[in-house]
Amino acid sequence: MNFVIVHQSKKSRARVGRIHTAHGVIDTPNFVAVGTNGTLKALDSRTVDEIGLQLMFCNTYHLMLQPGSEVIRDAGGIHKFMNRTMPIITDSGGFQVFSLAYGSVASELKSQGTKQTSNSVLKITEEGVLFRSYRDGQKVLLTPETSVQAQKNIGADIIIPFDELPPYHIGRDALIKSLERTHRWEKRSLDAHLANPRDQAMYAVVHGGIDPELRLQSCKYLRELPFDGFAIGGSVGKNKTEMITMLSAMLPELPTDRPNHLLGIGDLPSIAECIPLGIDTFDSSYPTKAARHGTAFTKKGPVYITKGENTLRLEPIEKNCECHTCRHYTLAYLNHLFKAREVSALTLTTIHNLHYMVQLMASYREGIAAGLI
Amino acid sequence: MNFVIVHQSKKSRARVGRIHTAHGVIDTPNFVAVGTNGTLKALDSRTVDEIGLQLMFCNTYHLMLQPGSEVIRDAGGIHKFMNRTMPIITDSGGFQVFSLAYGSVASELKSQGTKQTSNSVLKITEEGVLFRSYRDGQKVLLTPETSVQAQKNIGADIIIPFDELPPYHIGRDALIKSLERTHRWEKRSLDAHLANPRDQAMYAVVHGGIDPELRLQSCKYLRELPFDGFAIGGSVGKNKTEMITMLSAMLPELPTDRPNHLLGIGDLPSIAECIPLGIDTFDSSYPTKAARHGTAFTKKGPVYITKGENTLRLEPIEKNCECHTCRHYTLAYLNHLFKAREVSALTLTTIHNLHYMVQLMASYREGIAAGLI
Repeated sequence: MNFVIVHQSKKSRARVGRIHTAHGVIDTPNFVAVGTNGTLKALDSRTVDEIGLQLMFCNTYHLMLQPGSEVIRDAGGIHKFMNRTMPIITDSGGFQVFSLAYGSVASELKSQGTKQTSNSVLKITEEGVLFRSYRDGQKVLLTPETSVQAQKNIGADIIIPFDELPPYHIGRDALIKSLERTHRWEKRSLDAHLANPRDQAMYAVVHGGIDPELRLQSCKYLRELPFDGFAIGGSVGKNKTEMITMLSAMLPELPTDRPNHLLGIGDLPSIAECIPLGIDTFDSSYPTKAARHGTAFTKKGPVYITKGENTLRLEPIEKNCECHTCRHYTLAYLNHLFKAREVSALTLTTIHNLHYMVQLMASYREGIAAGLI
Repeated sequence: MNFVIVHQSKKSRARVGRIHTAHGVIDTPNFVAVGTNGTLKALDSRTVDEIGLQLMFCNTYHLMLQPGSEVIRDAGGIHKFMNRTMPIITDSGGFQVFSLAYGSVASELKSQGTKQTSNSVLKITEEGVLFRSYRDGQKVLLTPETSVQAQKNIGADIIIPFDELPPYHIGRDALIKSLERTHRWEKRSLDAHLANPRDQAMYAVVHGGIDPELRLQSCKYLRELPFDGFAIGGSVGKNKTEMITMLSAMLPELPTDRPNHLLGIGDLPSIAECIPLGIDTFDSSYPTKAARHGTAFTKKGPVYITKGENTLRLEPIEKNCECHTCRHYTLAYLNHLFKAREVSALTLTTIHNLHYMVQLMASYREGIAAGLI
C-alpha cells in the first residue's frame, strides 16, 4: 500500500490523497460502505462498481462464522468470491465480539450500564477471547493470531489488528489495563501480519476511550510501529462535540504521511466536521441502512420516501442526480415499492444513497483542492 | 396487436409466432414472468430487459389497491411508471378476488372444501363483486367496467376481461350459472374495451371448469367475439393428465390465427406438454418464486443452493450458462448469501432462473422450426 498526499489544505489538516492498493486506488477523503457479509445489502457487485464505491468494509466476525474464512480462501479470496475488483477492508472481529459482550455504546448511554447483554463471550484472557458462535453454538477462540489468519484467508487489501472494545462506562484503572492489553494484541497482530504480508496493509487502531491522556498515549505507542495507517476505534465521546474535541487533540499526534480512518462513523455532519481534522476515510452502514428504511439523501436534506406526499411525486428523489435510480424512477414508484414491500425498493434507494455519498466525498476533495476546506 | 405465425408444426398444433404490440414483439411460444406489483421481485427493470423477458404479467388487483390505477395513469402508464419498454399484460383482478373468496384449488384439493377462507368478498351480483381491500379495509366494487377502466389506467399492452373463478368443488348447475355470468361479464368487458381500445389488445378467458362440454361451449361462445387472443382460465383438472386431456379437446375449438395463453401455469413439464397442443404463452410465478427459495433451474434438473454440498462448490449454478449470475458468481457464494439471509441471494438466483426460462423458450421455438416438436 502506498499513500500519496495530492493536496494539503492550508486552512486545516484536511488533505486530498490517493491510497494505492493491489486492487486499485482509493481517493481520499472517502466514504467506505459496509458490506458485512461480503455483499452490500440489496446490491450486486456490478452495481456497486458502477456507483464508483472505491473501498468497501467487510466484517471478519461475520465472515469467519459464515461461510468461514477458509471457504473464502479456497474460493481465491474475498474479491474473487464476491466478484469485486476494487479495494476491500476488513476489521478484526474484535468490535463485534465485544459489542456482544458489553452491548453498544448507545444501549449503555440509555443507562443499561455495563451489564452483559449476551452470554456469547465465555472468557477474555491475555491470549484472546473465547465466544460462542451465534450461528451454531460452537466455541470460537479469537486471538490476535487467529484474527490475522482469518483476515489473511479473506484477503482484503487493508486489515485491522485485534483489539478490545472497552465498555463506555469503564473505570480508569480498567481502561488503562484494557488499553495496555490492546496494545499488546495490536503488536502481536502486526507481527503475525508482517510474517506474511501478502500485498495487504494493516492499520493500527487507536484506543483510550474517552480519556484524552490515554488517547494520546495510544497515538504515541502505535505511531512507533510500522503500521500502514491509523484507525480511530472505541468510543470517542457520547456526542459529536466530545468526539470533535477528542479528534482535534489526537490527530496531530499521528503521522501525517499515513491515512487516518474513523471507524464506524459516517453520518453527514460528522463527515463534514472530521475532514478538516484530518480524517481520510469513514465507514458507516448508516447511508445504506437509512436507504432500506426509506430515507433518501439529497442536498436539501433527507427525503422520507414512504410519506403520503410522495404517492404522486412524479419526479426523481433529487433533480439532476445522475444515479441509476433518479435517471429511471420517480418518487411515486419508489413510494409504491416500499408500500408493496418489494425488495427492489431497497435496491433502488440504496443505489441512490451510495451514489450520493460517492458524489459528496468527491465534492469534499474538490473543496479541499480549491482551498475551501 | 398483430399475431403472425412464422412456422406451423406438421407434427402437432405447436407453432412459432410473433405477437406485435405497441411496446415491441413477443416471440412465441414464450414464458411470461409475473411481476405482481409492477416490479419483478428482487429485480430492477434494467436487469429484466437484459435477460430479454419479452412479456411481463402484472396484477390489476394488487395495483388497483396499491398504488391505485389512477396513480399509474397519472404517471404516464405502467411502462413509464416502472421503467419498462417491453410488453406487459394485466389480468382483470377477478382471479385474486375469487381466490380470496374460495381459497386456491390446492387448498380445496387438500379437502378444505368450498368454505370461504376469507371474509374479504362481501357480495357477488350480476353487477360484479364487492370486496374489502386487504390494505385499508375500504369497500371496492369490481365490475367488468371498473376492471377494464383500471386496466385502461394501468395501460398494459394486453388486458383481460373480468371473469369469475368458480370453486373447484362446484356443482354442475352452479358451474353453468357461473359460466353464463362470466360470458356476460366478458362481453361487457369487451364492449368497455372497444369503446376506447387505446393500443391495447384483449384476450378472452375460456372457462367451464373441469366439465369438457362446458369448456367447449365457452370456446364456441367466445370465439365469435372480436377478442385478440384466448386465455385458458379456471381449473382445468386436478392434475397434469386431466389438464392435458382438457386442453387437447379445447384448443382445436379456438381460432388458429390468434394467440393462446395458459393462465397461471408455467412449470417445466406442463410447458413441454402444452406447447404441442398449441399454447403460445405461459405465465407463472414459479421460476421466480423457486429462485427466492434457493431452487435454481438447470438442464440437469433443479439445484438446491442452500444444500451443504454447495458450501464449497466453486463453480457456477450451470456450466456454460451465459446469465449474469453464472458468469460472475459461484454456488459457494450464492450458498453463503442465502445462509447469511442477504437480499442479493434472491436477486442473483432470480436472474438465473429467468434467464433459464428465456433460453428454454427460445429452444422450444427452435425445436418447432426444426420440425422436432
